[in-house]
Amino acid sequence: MITVSVFYPNDPATKFDEAYYMQKHIPLVKERWSGMGLKDAKVLKGMPGPDGAAPNRIIALLTFDSAEAFQKAAQAHGPELFGDVPNFTDGKPTVQISEVLG
Amino acid sequence: MITVSVFYPNDPATKFDEAYYMQKHIPLVKERWSGMGLKDAKVLKGMPGPDGAAPNRIIALLTFDSAEAFQKAAQAHGPELFGDVPNFTDGKPTVQISEVLG
Repeated sequence: MITVSVFYPNDPATKFDEAYYMQKHIPLVKERWSGMGLKDAKVLKGMPGPDGAAPNRIIALLTFDSAEAFQKAAQAHGPELFGDVPNFTDGKPTVQISEVLG
Repeated sequence: MITVSVFYPNDPATKFDEAYYMQKHIPLVKERWSGMGLKDAKVLKGMPGPDGAAPNRIIALLTFDSAEAFQKAAQAHGPELFGDVPNFTDGKPTVQISEVLG
């Protein structure tokens, strides 16, 4: 099992349309990738903490069967899905692929 | 539901004892916090991607019933658990508290 984490940094100079993200982008991700090994998609929204604003506004956690499954899914639909990002933010997300240790 | 994410940045200048972390630290976290609203603890280990090393070496994702439950858990056992960090890394973790949107 692997998890693809997509971090949207909490930069006040950028906009982020949460309604579009939750109602259009995430459903599109699920639609395209559910048949390609996507097992779970979770969205975390940063809350202010004792040290101020959370470092990330939004973190998406996408769990796939394997790194190979994600590679195939990204090849098939990556351009469309990453191409949708400017529709909800002018910030630049960071992507991390992780092995799930337990 | 909230998630506490603990990020250990992938800084080659710091050490990280993964065996201690998985065999001592995470079991200690579960032992102290399972009775205090901790529902799930997941550990992600960054894999090298097309852009090089993952931004975070390790990400811990701790899911609690509520922010209040986490606050109480942190007050009760935070000093002990954060005090254990130097036993496995000389790096400095970043903590983010997030609402789970779905």
